[in-house]
Amino acid sequence: MFINDTICAQATANGTAAISIIRLSGENAIEICKKIFVSKNTNFYDFKSHRIYFGNIQNGKNIIDEVLVSIFKAPNSYTGENSVEISCHGSAYICSKILELLIDNGARIAKHGEFTMRAFLNGKLDLSQAEAVADLISSNSKASHSLALSQMRGGFSNIIKDLRKELVNFASLIELELDFSEEDVEFADRKALTNLLDNLKYEITNLINSFAMGNVLKHGIPVAIIGKPNVGKSTLLNSLLNEEKAIVSEIPGTTRDSIEDILNINGITFRFIDTAGLRKSDDIIENIGIERTYQKLNQADIILYVVDIFETSVDEILASVEDFKQHIENKDKRIIIIANKTDLLMKTPQHFSDLLSLEVIFISAKRKENINLIAETLLKYVSTDTNPDKTIISNLRHYEALSKTLDSINQIETGLINGIPGDLIAIDLKKALLHLGEITGEVTNDEILTNIFANFCIGK
Amino acid sequence: MFINDTICAQATANGTAAISIIRLSGENAIEICKKIFVSKNTNFYDFKSHRIYFGNIQNGKNIIDEVLVSIFKAPNSYTGENSVEISCHGSAYICSKILELLIDNGARIAKHGEFTMRAFLNGKLDLSQAEAVADLISSNSKASHSLALSQMRGGFSNIIKDLRKELVNFASLIELELDFSEEDVEFADRKALTNLLDNLKYEITNLINSFAMGNVLKHGIPVAIIGKPNVGKSTLLNSLLNEEKAIVSEIPGTTRDSIEDILNINGITFRFIDTAGLRKSDDIIENIGIERTYQKLNQADIILYVVDIFETSVDEILASVEDFKQHIENKDKRIIIIANKTDLLMKTPQHFSDLLSLEVIFISAKRKENINLIAETLLKYVSTDTNPDKTIISNLRHYEALSKTLDSINQIETGLINGIPGDLIAIDLKKALLHLGEITGEVTNDEILTNIFANFCIGK
Repeated sequence: MFINDTICAQATANGTAAISIIRLSGENAIEICKKIFVSKNTNFYDFKSHRIYFGNIQNGKNIIDEVLVSIFKAPNSYTGENSVEISCHGSAYICSKILELLIDNGARIAKHGEFTMRAFLNGKLDLSQAEAVADLISSNSKASHSLALSQMRGGFSNIIKDLRKELVNFASLIELELDFSEEDVEFADRKALTNLLDNLKYEITNLINSFAMGNVLKHGIPVAIIGKPNVGKSTLLNSLLNEEKAIVSEIPGTTRDSIEDILNINGITFRFIDTAGLRKSDDIIENIGIERTYQKLNQADIILYVVDIFETSVDEILASVEDFKQHIENKDKRIIIIANKTDLLMKTPQHFSDLLSLEVIFISAKRKENINLIAETLLKYVSTDTNPDKTIISNLRHYEALSKTLDSINQIETGLINGIPGDLIAIDLKKALLHLGEITGEVTNDEILTNIFANFCIGK
Repeated sequence: MFINDTICAQATANGTAAISIIRLSGENAIEICKKIFVSKNTNFYDFKSHRIYFGNIQNGKNIIDEVLVSIFKAPNSYTGENSVEISCHGSAYICSKILELLIDNGARIAKHGEFTMRAFLNGKLDLSQAEAVADLISSNSKASHSLALSQMRGGFSNIIKDLRKELVNFASLIELELDFSEEDVEFADRKALTNLLDNLKYEITNLINSFAMGNVLKHGIPVAIIGKPNVGKSTLLNSLLNEEKAIVSEIPGTTRDSIEDILNINGITFRFIDTAGLRKSDDIIENIGIERTYQKLNQADIILYVVDIFETSVDEILASVEDFKQHIENKDKRIIIIANKTDLLMKTPQHFSDLLSLEVIFISAKRKENINLIAETLLKYVSTDTNPDKTIISNLRHYEALSKTLDSINQIETGLINGIPGDLIAIDLKKALLHLGEITGEVTNDEILTNIFANFCIGK
């Protein structure tokens, strides 16, 4: 970790705009800024923190832009270091020229997430808060935004820190026992330790269990729409996207070549996975496509199975649902039958739903009838689990550290039951403390930090 | 023009980033900010200009983001009004939520260029400076950047204003004469007026003549690469783009479906126009394609005519150059023969260039030999006309206003020679003043303003 040098980067998104911000942080940030900033304001050599100065960025006599510079003096900045934000005209050309000039004057381009890493290293944020900054930036729904914001504001860190503090107390009592091991005293009340461990297990298990929901809130719920060709899958998807007047956009999917449709219902994101139509075929190529569809079904949490109610009998539906169930791994996947084309029927066939053990929604995608019922049903599968006051984790790294903590706690408990000596309990306690400490960064190493901040954008 | 309300918009580019800026301007900007900004800083209700405050943007108790707000009090802001810049996390979701909240609290979304239009209306910038702001933002080369920056800093406005001032003096003297018309006095020295008009004509003609270069510097120089199929046009273009290690990018062209390659040589932008290969054909469709190529040749300032030197004789080249010259309107277009595939020859055929009246560059696109000569030659066609200290105009509106001014001046001169009465000279003088005033905005109307600012982005 080299944190004595001064780093710079564009902090705003690329593209032509009214304003772009270039950020500079490090011991010499203000000195470097003075070398390239020229202002009519006679006081500008006496920069004060949290003040804004108007002037030119100049390379010698050559003016690059008219800018505002904002001054932040250590420790009262995002990074905890001296920092400057240069607000220039939003042209890529101007930004690159200013960055070149900063580099010529002793700064270097920041690495991914380096500003936030410095904030962590300087004690402005703990590690889980730093991670939440990246989540906050990429948040695109009410749910993912609240999750990231509450984590950034330390809600989750505080629980972990409190748990760890209690455990540290016990660990030091156990260590004390070891110092007096020949005298066979017990400073650490075994019963109180057992109680604490039970509390810990309860809290940690809750957090671990919240991960599934956290993951869903953060990344959205994968939904597959499948069915035979021409049953109205595309019409349904389009109706859904319109009906909800929701934030609809296309985002690059996890694989480079797939584009997913996003439907945002009451702040929860549903990601629609594109699947090819299902049909029996002897064509090898076509069967490969169908095999891929089954693979995608396995990624989905919810499957909307669309049938043409006018052309399909209950028996056929039952048979084909059974058929595709053969191909999916998790038999508990939520399957909703969408009986489309009710516009072609005289009346809705109630007997139809009675015959199936699955939920059936009767719609006319063409006439946009009952589309809202699908949205409500999708939401129902989520909202039963959500509670705004509940602490939810959404980070795989936290999940893994909590799981390891739980393993260690189970080992301590087993040890206590079997009356194993204090020095062995101490080892398991240290393991539990290590894993809990990894979450907030009280225990860390370069590799963990590098991995975490590699996922940040440059400039954050 | 409603400039009593408070406008807001995102001022940074769209996209996920460390920081986004939301800008707020108008009489109530600071009051509106206070309604949604909550800070631990006890002084924040006493916001001072050019200070930065840390706190939360909140909708009631619901925190939307942790932000910095920068305060600018009228008249010391970009717009000349009370202004606030909210620096939030760079998530589209957060930006949209903050904008919604601002609107709920009495702001409205700004129109295109409305911040800059207010700066103009409040006298912070003249009109040609305001226009330069848009040019500066879209500047993508050294040349277009210098041009916009010098215009924004008023270099060009000052010339116009000085010229206009002198003309205003004469106009008032002439008006004075009209008041005393029965006494037949001459307050305005006709000889001095003629001298001033000569100076004006000289300056304005220089500015008008600079427009061609200004346009080139701003928009780049269109270059067409043509030739028969398989003579190496694509290889040449790729070599050119690589050779210069230049800022190479693809930008959407003027027509939606065409993508142009951009080559930046010493700060000058060359835009390569994509053309289909030329070949004689009886195929109707193919001939339509060739006709389009000829149309595109007419858009180019420079034509690189690529020949396969191994397979083409001097006579054939002469014949085909004559042939495509038939199809282009401006016979003075610069044509450079690129004799490709020298790698297939034993030695460079000097006689070849002697036979042609056109410039010939011998290259091997495959071996990347002499590609730099093409870049140098392209630059030569421009740099002979450029002079860093010369004032250059690049805006069509200014060009038209200057041309109209010149017409009026010519009419005044003719009038003076023919000894026409002062009241008729006064009319022509007023026309000249009107057209000059339109450039800097001393004379303006809603339609001109609407047209100018419609080309700005929202948030500028």
